[in-house]
Amino acid sequence: MYKVVLLRHGESIWNKENKFTGWTDVDLSEKGITEARAAGKLLKDEGYEFDAAYTSVLKRAIRTLWITLDEMDLMWIPVTRSWRLNEKHYGALQGLNKSETAEKYGEEQVFIWRRDYNTAPPALSLDDERHPVHDRRYAALRPEDIPGTECLKDTVARFLPVWEDEIAPAIKSGKRIIIAAHGNSLRALVKHLDNISDGDIPKLNIPTGIPLVYELDENLKPIKHYYLGNQDEIEAAAKAVADQGKKK
Amino acid sequence: MYKVVLLRHGESIWNKENKFTGWTDVDLSEKGITEARAAGKLLKDEGYEFDAAYTSVLKRAIRTLWITLDEMDLMWIPVTRSWRLNEKHYGALQGLNKSETAEKYGEEQVFIWRRDYNTAPPALSLDDERHPVHDRRYAALRPEDIPGTECLKDTVARFLPVWEDEIAPAIKSGKRIIIAAHGNSLRALVKHLDNISDGDIPKLNIPTGIPLVYELDENLKPIKHYYLGNQDEIEAAAKAVADQGKKK
Repeated sequence: MYKVVLLRHGESIWNKENKFTGWTDVDLSEKGITEARAAGKLLKDEGYEFDAAYTSVLKRAIRTLWITLDEMDLMWIPVTRSWRLNEKHYGALQGLNKSETAEKYGEEQVFIWRRDYNTAPPALSLDDERHPVHDRRYAALRPEDIPGTECLKDTVARFLPVWEDEIAPAIKSGKRIIIAAHGNSLRALVKHLDNISDGDIPKLNIPTGIPLVYELDENLKPIKHYYLGNQDEIEAAAKAVADQGKKK
Repeated sequence: MYKVVLLRHGESIWNKENKFTGWTDVDLSEKGITEARAAGKLLKDEGYEFDAAYTSVLKRAIRTLWITLDEMDLMWIPVTRSWRLNEKHYGALQGLNKSETAEKYGEEQVFIWRRDYNTAPPALSLDDERHPVHDRRYAALRPEDIPGTECLKDTVARFLPVWEDEIAPAIKSGKRIIIAAHGNSLRALVKHLDNISDGDIPKLNIPTGIPLVYELDENLKPIKHYYLGNQDEIEAAAKAVADQGKKK
């Protein structure tokens, strides 16, 4: 009935350095740019067309979308940027190396901070210059909406309004939509769509730069979903995401 | 009181080849990319900030905006694309060389087609595949809004609604706006702002890739305007635009 395409941004510089990124506005790496270009080419070759796009206010997602739209000759479609599609806020872990953090706090603790549905990493304090209250792109938000850290449950809660109020109605109106976002904001969407339990969601990993297609019925319930491209490569890429929080 | 920045896209491939472009979706040349980058750097160095951007649905303007926002670290601001900011439609002249057309029809006729306020070039027929009725980016428009050719008066008429309904209210609300558009859609805006007569507007030329700043009073009447950057280079660039319609 309907199709929506989810695209996690290509590898960022901090993905490459295995750092917690969250709301830090880190750019794509060269590999990430190549991944985005490949995603656009693949979508074009498979005959996909889009009428509108949604992305976050973080440049690694926006650039991934730009490159994809450029490859598809769709630079002209309307693009909506929303902070609600941002990555999960990683609090005081932002900027720390994932493996080093695992050495220090243990793999189990890092897995909890990365993946436990209800446990957020330690928060940034309001006077920390990295706190989003100091970034003018969030100046129009209500103070209580600006996080200093998030667990995935928080990400789901702030993501759902843009889904319910904007993206879902656009899909139901027949618009073909691409969402270029982040590992955890897309996990939030997938959890919602597939009704994945809080206990099962930690096991779900979404690789960078590979279009994930959801086919939805008239109530936007998933009929099926699949990644575009070489299936072995995709499996290896998802495993690599799962392994990031391990010690070296 | 208010400032708005107008930016004509950098040189396109057809600017370079001295062809009439109009609504043909031609990309920037290498020089155009360099110009856009310089515009972004200049705006950043001069301390400009923007809260929102407007552009056309043509890639030479969109790419100019993308490069500018990238240079300014403003990829996150909202961007509105509107067909109302497109270049003047050049009808059946689209794709023809300006100098060759001057050889064939005379410089005077080409000047009239390029610059006379009330005279449009010969129209594309509806069954011509270049007619915008065949391009899905215009599918949502009312048929009577889709031009097969335009004189500047037509461009002004279809441009003004997006100015009056969206851009002007945004400026009055205090938003700092950049408009990345085209020679003639920006001439339409300047004509409106400065209340330039139909007889005087043919003499106005806007060079590519140079930020044009309008300072406006509380009623959006211009207080003054100026180009950013080296003034001698700007004068030479404007003269080059005026000379495009001459024989070799």
